[in-house]
Amino acid sequence: MTTTEALNRLTELERTLRAYNHAIGCLNYDGETVAPRNAAPARGETMAFLSGIVHEKVTAPETGELIEVLLADRDALSLKDRRRAELLKEGRDDMTLIPADEYMAYQQLLAEAGQVWHDAKLASDYAAYAPYLDKIIAYNRRFAARKGPGKPAYDVLLDGYEKGLSHETLDPFFALLRAELTPVILEVAKRPRPDVAFLDQPYPVHLQRKFTDRVMAIMGISRDDCAVGETEHPFTEGFNKHDVRITTHYHEGAVLSNLYSVVHEGGHALYELGIGDDLQGTFLAGGSSMSIHESQSRFYENLIGRSRPFCEALLPELKALFPQQMAGVDAEKLYRAANLAEPSLIRTEADELTYSIHVMIRYELEKAMIAGDIKTGDIPGEWNRMYREYLGVDVPDNRRGVLQDSHWSFGAIGYFPSYALGSAYGVQMLENMEKDVDVWGAARGGDLRPITAWLGERIHRYGQLLTPKELVENGCGGPFDPAHYVNYLKKKYGELYSL
Amino acid sequence: MTTTEALNRLTELERTLRAYNHAIGCLNYDGETVAPRNAAPARGETMAFLSGIVHEKVTAPETGELIEVLLADRDALSLKDRRRAELLKEGRDDMTLIPADEYMAYQQLLAEAGQVWHDAKLASDYAAYAPYLDKIIAYNRRFAARKGPGKPAYDVLLDGYEKGLSHETLDPFFALLRAELTPVILEVAKRPRPDVAFLDQPYPVHLQRKFTDRVMAIMGISRDDCAVGETEHPFTEGFNKHDVRITTHYHEGAVLSNLYSVVHEGGHALYELGIGDDLQGTFLAGGSSMSIHESQSRFYENLIGRSRPFCEALLPELKALFPQQMAGVDAEKLYRAANLAEPSLIRTEADELTYSIHVMIRYELEKAMIAGDIKTGDIPGEWNRMYREYLGVDVPDNRRGVLQDSHWSFGAIGYFPSYALGSAYGVQMLENMEKDVDVWGAARGGDLRPITAWLGERIHRYGQLLTPKELVENGCGGPFDPAHYVNYLKKKYGELYSL
Repeated sequence: MTTTEALNRLTELERTLRAYNHAIGCLNYDGETVAPRNAAPARGETMAFLSGIVHEKVTAPETGELIEVLLADRDALSLKDRRRAELLKEGRDDMTLIPADEYMAYQQLLAEAGQVWHDAKLASDYAAYAPYLDKIIAYNRRFAARKGPGKPAYDVLLDGYEKGLSHETLDPFFALLRAELTPVILEVAKRPRPDVAFLDQPYPVHLQRKFTDRVMAIMGISRDDCAVGETEHPFTEGFNKHDVRITTHYHEGAVLSNLYSVVHEGGHALYELGIGDDLQGTFLAGGSSMSIHESQSRFYENLIGRSRPFCEALLPELKALFPQQMAGVDAEKLYRAANLAEPSLIRTEADELTYSIHVMIRYELEKAMIAGDIKTGDIPGEWNRMYREYLGVDVPDNRRGVLQDSHWSFGAIGYFPSYALGSAYGVQMLENMEKDVDVWGAARGGDLRPITAWLGERIHRYGQLLTPKELVENGCGGPFDPAHYVNYLKKKYGELYSL
Repeated sequence: MTTTEALNRLTELERTLRAYNHAIGCLNYDGETVAPRNAAPARGETMAFLSGIVHEKVTAPETGELIEVLLADRDALSLKDRRRAELLKEGRDDMTLIPADEYMAYQQLLAEAGQVWHDAKLASDYAAYAPYLDKIIAYNRRFAARKGPGKPAYDVLLDGYEKGLSHETLDPFFALLRAELTPVILEVAKRPRPDVAFLDQPYPVHLQRKFTDRVMAIMGISRDDCAVGETEHPFTEGFNKHDVRITTHYHEGAVLSNLYSVVHEGGHALYELGIGDDLQGTFLAGGSSMSIHESQSRFYENLIGRSRPFCEALLPELKALFPQQMAGVDAEKLYRAANLAEPSLIRTEADELTYSIHVMIRYELEKAMIAGDIKTGDIPGEWNRMYREYLGVDVPDNRRGVLQDSHWSFGAIGYFPSYALGSAYGVQMLENMEKDVDVWGAARGGDLRPITAWLGERIHRYGQLLTPKELVENGCGGPFDPAHYVNYLKKKYGELYSL
């Protein structure tokens, strides 16, 4: 096989896998958003069947052969072609560790676990979910042992979400956050709580849906390329740059919850929407590591979305839709309410200051789960113990405790640290961006396109062409240093709470 | 290959095709309901790719071989196994007429045509849609010529929607309806119009959505097995008996439009939900012909849904949600409004009396289209001419004319007559049902389960196990006779309009 033949076969394989993954993604999205609940078993069967074919195509000897031919000639390849081959190799190496039957059974398990988690959360019934979580943990441990024999299993999983990430980076990272932020959290707790009574009113859901439309417009996201669905746990799915989906959730008594879900998922969406045309259809046409993805979503959600200027832009929109509820509220009051800092139960609703502690708790738990240091049945107890120890809150039920996040139900163990890392990357990117862009003018003006253009140029357009490390340096203008994140939080909350 | 081996291979093929068709169906449903509009090209590519694999599996020589083995031993097979083999043969015979490339290109065309039709309808822009329609007509003509050389092409297409159906049945059927119903329509036009002012008010969409929930409950449809989406043109899609989707549309000024869309599509859904457990997973696990399907949907929509007792059941539901709009409205007033008969523009909104004339116009047009007697560019003119001639209405724009229905955009030419035939079947089924069931007590009580149980026993549970003719006789208690339909309409509208 010549290099040219191998490249043609690579393109053909991309086309085939694109179709299968599109179908699997669509079944999954449909299942998460609109399918009736009893649809889960048949959907799981179909998804497992199609996943089996993906497994077969990826692990086929011919696929190994084409990778070999291409990488033997790696120096003659363009960066793009080399990365396409490398990514295929990484995916193939992983899949080859798992026999087809086991892979299909796992996919079916995940398809069912999503529904089980959803129902278990609503009923606050951990026991119903535990057998699924148990199997998911066992699968991940087995997989890690095969992939990195002799290495700490959790490091192997972390590496799957961001190449090279391990406890050696994360232990000191979380230790720094804990050491630097805990005193601030304790100080804030002593200060007067801002007045958020205006939020504790009913904001009718059908009007919140209209508010979502406005927020999407402010973010510059075209609904022709990006749809908005509704789910218990918001997420983003990108099929291609003209077909991205975000989801949000509506609670009549929590208007900001929807707002920041949309801004967060909108940040993910802008990343997928901004991937270069030249990468479409290839393996490179997706976001890079989860940390990079979260750096974008958390950037919009917090650095922009919870800024004073953005609150100024939102105020008239909120007043137009909710004149009674927002009577007497000015931008400063909205800003302070949107940045209310206090230890709380729910990660996705947490303020920026305590957020990383929520993530750290999950990090510690996952380490123990994957090391085999904790039984599945003991996870809720350990969860509750850590919430008490690190955040000083009592978890009243598993719905607001260990069942709150969907991640483990779709097999993502090792993902959570991305949220904290991404948050930290974002701060450094913002400082770098401020040199080039009138960030706060854009936010205040209710048109985030200049911000997105800057990120698009340095991050989004590259898809998976560059490594996460290269993208971080592109965005940050230098190597990553978590001190920026710590300083940002101390400054912001110092000012907010007159520390 | 032994018969047992062939049966095992049949089961394996059912499993494979079930997965592909589920994925294709899901992509289609997603595209019709929630996908962003620019998603269409990539979705079309994926759907065409997967359809190509279906084509490959169905037309494979091994599939021909297993059919031969099974049908050679047909008398030894159970009815169920024989029908499974026969249905596969019918599908294979059709697909074998079309080369894979042509089939995939057609599937891609249809995927795009759906979006084009949707946009063209909203913009009332026939010219944008015409090139797609032109290709769809050409494909159907080519296909019919191959399938039934020497036969009238339109008869070949009709036979595809209901085995044995041809112009020899339909010409006299529509002639009878025209002859018998036209004088009634003319008489009704001279009578005073019922008072429908209460309908010409805004009924907020978010409350109409709640009304949908109530209507679904009255119909006895569990949302755990059946979801409700929103589309320009309502339809039903059934993946299996635990995953059925109906769609409806909401217009603030047309509360009955949503109501009768839900009841109509709910009738389709009840059919799919009632298919026997013993047929699930096989080729037989779907509704029979389109006429049988429409007999069920039109049964619920009109015979039940537009009856006095059902209006009595709906009244308190409507009053609870829309107290101001419904002030002073009693069941009789609602009944008369729901049965307002007058020549109109939109088929799906038409009263029962004029409905068949809408269908007849499409029947005549399709005959001409497929015979090659009319150019695509001339279809709107001919449409408008017939609406003037047969219904006496002037079509103001193509949105409310030739672009109103989605059917041609998804390749369905020869489908429309099913609506009129199904309507006629339903009346005879109702008369037969009244012998066994307290139909009007059930309707008045707001619980249609006894009605559904009767239909389930005679029609639904059989899926495609019986022929349409057998199902009609099962339901009607004897051979079909359109006189029942004509007499029903004359009696109902005679009473309503004191003719």
